Parts: sequence; structure tokens; C-alpha cells
Amino acid sequence: MKVNNEKNILENYLKKFKKELYGNIIPFWMKHSPDKKYGGYFTCLDRFGKVYDNKKYIWLQGRQVWMFSKLYNTVEKKREWFEMAKLGVDFMRKYAKDASGRVYFSLTREGSPFFIQRKIFAECFYIMGLCEYSRAAGDRAVYNEAIGLFWKVYGWSKDGSKLGRPNLSGQGNVHSLSVPMILLNLIEDIADESNLSEFSVLIDGLLKDIMKHVDTKRQLVFENVSDDSNFKSNSEGRLLNPGHAIECGWFLLNCAVKRNDSKLMKEAENIIDWSFDLGWDKKHGGLFYFLDSGRTQPTQLEWAMKLWWPHVETMYAFLLLYSLTGSKKYLDKFIKVTDYTFSNFRDSKYGEWFGYLDREGKRTHDFKGGPYKGCFHIPRSLLFSIQLLENMILKSN
Amino acid sequence: MKVNNEKNILENYLKKFKKELYGNIIPFWMKHSPDKKYGGYFTCLDRFGKVYDNKKYIWLQGRQVWMFSKLYNTVEKKREWFEMAKLGVDFMRKYAKDASGRVYFSLTREGSPFFIQRKIFAECFYIMGLCEYSRAAGDRAVYNEAIGLFWKVYGWSKDGSKLGRPNLSGQGNVHSLSVPMILLNLIEDIADESNLSEFSVLIDGLLKDIMKHVDTKRQLVFENVSDDSNFKSNSEGRLLNPGHAIECGWFLLNCAVKRNDSKLMKEAENIIDWSFDLGWDKKHGGLFYFLDSGRTQPTQLEWAMKLWWPHVETMYAFLLLYSLTGSKKYLDKFIKVTDYTFSNFRDSKYGEWFGYLDREGKRTHDFKGGPYKGCFHIPRSLLFSIQLLENMILKSN
Repeated sequence: MKVNNEKNILENYLKKFKKELYGNIIPFWMKHSPDKKYGGYFTCLDRFGKVYDNKKYIWLQGRQVWMFSKLYNTVEKKREWFEMAKLGVDFMRKYAKDASGRVYFSLTREGSPFFIQRKIFAECFYIMGLCEYSRAAGDRAVYNEAIGLFWKVYGWSKDGSKLGRPNLSGQGNVHSLSVPMILLNLIEDIADESNLSEFSVLIDGLLKDIMKHVDTKRQLVFENVSDDSNFKSNSEGRLLNPGHAIECGWFLLNCAVKRNDSKLMKEAENIIDWSFDLGWDKKHGGLFYFLDSGRTQPTQLEWAMKLWWPHVETMYAFLLLYSLTGSKKYLDKFIKVTDYTFSNFRDSKYGEWFGYLDREGKRTHDFKGGPYKGCFHIPRSLLFSIQLLENMILKSN
Repeated sequence: MKVNNEKNILENYLKKFKKELYGNIIPFWMKHSPDKKYGGYFTCLDRFGKVYDNKKYIWLQGRQVWMFSKLYNTVEKKREWFEMAKLGVDFMRKYAKDASGRVYFSLTREGSPFFIQRKIFAECFYIMGLCEYSRAAGDRAVYNEAIGLFWKVYGWSKDGSKLGRPNLSGQGNVHSLSVPMILLNLIEDIADESNLSEFSVLIDGLLKDIMKHVDTKRQLVFENVSDDSNFKSNSEGRLLNPGHAIECGWFLLNCAVKRNDSKLMKEAENIIDWSFDLGWDKKHGGLFYFLDSGRTQPTQLEWAMKLWWPHVETMYAFLLLYSLTGSKKYLDKFIKVTDYTFSNFRDSKYGEWFGYLDREGKRTHDFKGGPYKGCFHIPRSLLFSIQLLENMILKSN
């Protein structure tokens, strides 16, 4: 049982997060993002919610479908949430995929293809949205379509040439952390009884792939690894993204809970601890976007900027660690990160949150949504945190 | 004849620039960049000149070959300059091109392909380097190889699918300013008597393509244009890069001089004037990297940063405008930009220049060379400025 003081803290955050999610974030996207004429969502919304770019970015279409479906499936069967999800699903299924199954990165407002990446992420968010929606709609055909595409994408993830990336001899065998990470998160989310054992085998492999990025001795999580021993003498091989590693950490924590795997649990805890200690800017607060394991600065121009998503992912990661370990130090870190995040990113005047600050915390962009910022990281973190807080408070009674 | 005061100013800048080019910039690259073991140049050099990434970036290999060949061809027949150029040419010719003629973006230190872009720039800098070197070496075979590749690249520039970029219906007919700009600059540089008339026809077309980016009424130079009337409602369609437009401006000035075209001269002058007035940060000084013609900020994370290359390009653009018009206001602008540039980017302690500052002018990166910063913009601007200053002083005597 929690001491009373800790319980009070949790109750206050629960109240704060519910107000934020249901009184600020979700209403903002409900009001400003639906394209009632052509379907799908506008995601490039300025400070006031006005559309400044009407393209449809598929990462963000898929994620918003997922978000509203998840709210409908786990919070309340609100018709308006279902309708929001359906608006995105119908648009995506009609326009987002080409004949081979590849999913575009962006479409025009009307649905014509605008850009395609040589990566699997658009496909992953398409699948993630469809699966969660299929549960809301009780539509098995949609689920099967998504799972069918998953197996294609899983194949492509092993061979970049299928995505239009030539296999070049000098690359050796470079692996990006984002690939096994997104696949792990996706599988955990889309699996059901019909495919649990197949997916379990895949997860074994993905966990191994992820662990190749973790250098336990140096307490570092590398974005890119390779069999080539020279790789660490290059910028790609030394690149760190602390918020990304922390997000990976909570994916692993959830996986460890499901598998009742205490070794994995400890590894995930380490990943979060190390990445936070290294990534937190001691001078100005906030998490650096990128770091170089061997140099003062990486080459990325935006390395020192503070972005909204690493911070909301870290909020949830520490709350989850606190709930799993009961250790007060994680509650303190959760509070520290949450306070920084709410005071620096939240727009108390016009709703939703800003996404981008300079190193010192000054706002560099005032839009609420863009090509990479939509209705996803903030509401996902808030929803998962709310569900966790409710459970913790319940248990402590 | 210049008034004495102006002549004194020019003489002082000539002295300053010569000292900078021959006493700082060129010695830095002579000392730190040659890879004596595998050939080619290291370009990822830290503040002190130490290699922090040993990959060979072909934009920068080609540009450095060009730079040392140009010095050899136009300043002095120094053996060491020729040898430097040859070190890069031999490496590039051996490793940088695939069987189809496409040029990689980067190679490993030893020369294995590491990355290829879906763009023509690596090819352009390869060609630019080879042509200038062929004049230094008196090697017609190298020149012919480069010109042969040029015609391939010119074809690819008309059809992105040849570069691995699918033609997507939603894009309409999007054109990037960088393509006709680099081709114009390249042709002006590589043309000789054997192809002058062929190239002249091409230049007619490129000038037309460039002018499509210039909105005379609004006094804006757009990075991307399209036939699609909806395009301006999207971020790509409103994107401005003032330093890039100014660089384009001086390419056009040189072209106008050669063609004795006073209309083009005036258009180029406008492009430089408008872009500078819009792009200069009235609060902190320096040129913004990106702007949005309709919004306070574009979506690019690095939009407010101050980069070295727009500043050195603008130095030369104003000096050239001053030499062509005799107008004192351009001398004043040249002085303003040069003073900002020298005081903010120059590393008086360890040589060469820093490349990246935040909006307020604070250094964000301390490396001297990176994947996109090599031995090119600074020495090219200094060399061309020196040649111009010498001419102006000569004429004023």
C-alpha cells in the first residue's frame, strides 16, 4: 500500500492528466483535424488550429485512427470517437496503399500520392490504425487485411532493396533501432489469439535485435549498429537518441510484464535510467534530441533542441517504472519530467501543445501539428498514464 | 575611378581575404584532409582538424577537387595544389560511380559504396571536379568522361524515376530551384569551345526554369514551384531559402555579364536585394536558413539557425553587385555581411570556420568539416572575391 502522500500525488496527476486529455488534447483534434469534404485528417494545424498545409501524412493518419479507436475500445463507446477513427480508415484504405502494398508517406488533400519513403513506418502506422479500428468496428475483414500487410512489411524489413534502398557493400550490415522497436510495438498491439504463437517467435527475434543496440558496459543505447568494427568510428555508429531509447525502454517493460521476464525487466529499467541520465540537459533542463557517444555534439543540426515527444514518452516510462518497482526515485523523476513538460510545451492560451523548443526552452515553432506531429504521442502517453494511475490508486486502497 | 576611401576599403578587404584564404583555410585542408593511405579526402574534421568520421562524401570530394584545381588553374601552378586535386580525382574515378553512371553520396574510407541519394547533386559535383581537374592535368580523356556523364545527368534531371524517385500523380509538376541552379552553375563552369553552342541552348531553358521560381509581384524567390494551383497552400510551395536565392542571384549575374543581358542583370539584382532584405534577421543579425512566405516559421526544425554558407555566398554576391553597378549601397551591404560573417563564424584559435550557429549567434557545433561542410563555399567565395577585388583596384588606378 502506498503511503498517503504518494497516493495524493498520484490522484492529483490523474486529475491533471484527465483534464488535459479530455478537456484539451482530444477536443483540439476533434474540432480542427477532420476533413469533412475528402475524408482523413488535416494534421498541419497552426497555433489556433487553422490548416496551413492540407496534405495527408500517413504516419499521422494511421496514428490518429489508432488513438480514437483505442479511446473507443478502452475508455468509452462514444459514437464521435468511432466516427473520427472511421473517417481516417476509410480515407487510408481508399488512397494510402499502392498495388504492391507499399503505403505512401503523404497524399494530397484529395488522396493522390505525393511522397513515398524508402522505409516501413508508413506501413506500420497504417497497420496499427486498421487493427485497432477493426476491434472497434468488429470488422474482421479489416483486421485480416492489416495482418496480411504486416507479413509483407516484415519481409521488407529484412531487405531494404524491396523498399527501393539498394544494398550497398560499404554499409556492412547496418541496423536501425527504430525497425525492431516499431515492429515490437506493433506486434504487441495487433496480436490476438489467432496469431499469438506465431508472433511470439517473432518477438523473440526482435528482442535479440534490440539488445544488439545496448552496450551494457558503456551504458549506452545506440541508434545504429553494424557487424563492421569500423562503424563506431563514424557518426552513424555513435548516434544516440535518448528519448527514443527511453520509448524503447517502456515497450520492453510492457513486454517483460507480459512474458513475466525479470531479466528483460531489469534490462529495460537500465535502458531508461542510462538514457535519461545521459540525455537530460543539466544546464537548461529537458532532453537533448540527439547525442554522439564520443563527441560533444553530433552532426544533426537540431541535436540540442527539445522536442515534445521524447518528453511525453519519458513521463510514461517513469510512471510505468514506478508502478512496477514501487521505487520512490521513479516517482520523483516522473514528477521532474512532467513538470518540465507541462510548463514548457503546453499552450495554456490556445490549447494543445507546442512541439519544438531551442536548447534553452524558447519556442522555435508555434504550430500544434505538422508533418511529424499529430494526434498521437501526447494523447497516448496521457491515456496510458491515466490507465496506470487508476490501477495504482485502486490497488493502494 | 573609385573615390580614395572606397579604394582603401577594397585594398583592406583584399589583404584580409588573401590572408584568410592562403593563411588559414587552404592550409587547414592541406594539412588535415588528405587520406594518404586510401586516397580521397577526410571531410569530417573536428575543431582541431582531427577526423571524427572517415567516410568519403562525394559532394565534398568533387568540390575539393574543383577548389584545388581552380587554385592551380587561376592562381599559381603549385605542385601541392595539383597533387591535392589528383588525390581526390583518382579516388572518385575509381570508386564513386556505379556501372550506370550514378554517383554515390558517400563511400567508406576504403571506397565501398555506403549511401546513394535519389538526386543529381553527387553527379554534378563529380563532373565539376573532373572538368576543372582535366584543365589542370591537360587530360582530355577526363574532360570527355565528365561531359559524357553530364548528358546522362541532364536527362535524369528531367525524370526523377531514373534516380529511383517514382513519379507520383499527386505531385503535379513540382520543380526544385536547386536543380536548374546547379545545372546552370555547372554548365558555366565546364563549357569550352567544343560545346559552347549546345550548352548555350540549355542555358536558355535553365534561365526560364529558374525564373519560374521568382514572384516579381511579391518579391519572393520560391524553393519549389508547381503547375498545381493548390501547391502554394502547402509548406513546400511557400518555402524560401534566402541564402540559396542569393547564391542563385550571383550565378545569374555572371551569366548576365557573359551574355551582355541587362534585363537578366536587373532580375538577378532584384533576387539578391529582395532575398537579403527578407532573410536578414533584424533582431540578432545573420541570415535565416529557411522562411515560409505565409507564416512566421516554416516546419524545418533548423529554420532560424545561421549557417556559414549563405553568409559567404552573400558576401560575394554583394561585392559582385558593387563591382557591376558601382553603387555604394552594395559596398555597405558587403561590409555588413562580411563583418557579421568573420566575427561569428571564424575560429581565431584553431583555424578554419565554424559552420552552425543558433538564431542568436551562439555556436551549436564546433566541427570544421562535416557531411555537408567541406573545402568549398568559404574558399570559393574568398577566391572569387579576391579576383574581383584585384580587378576593381586595377581599374581604379
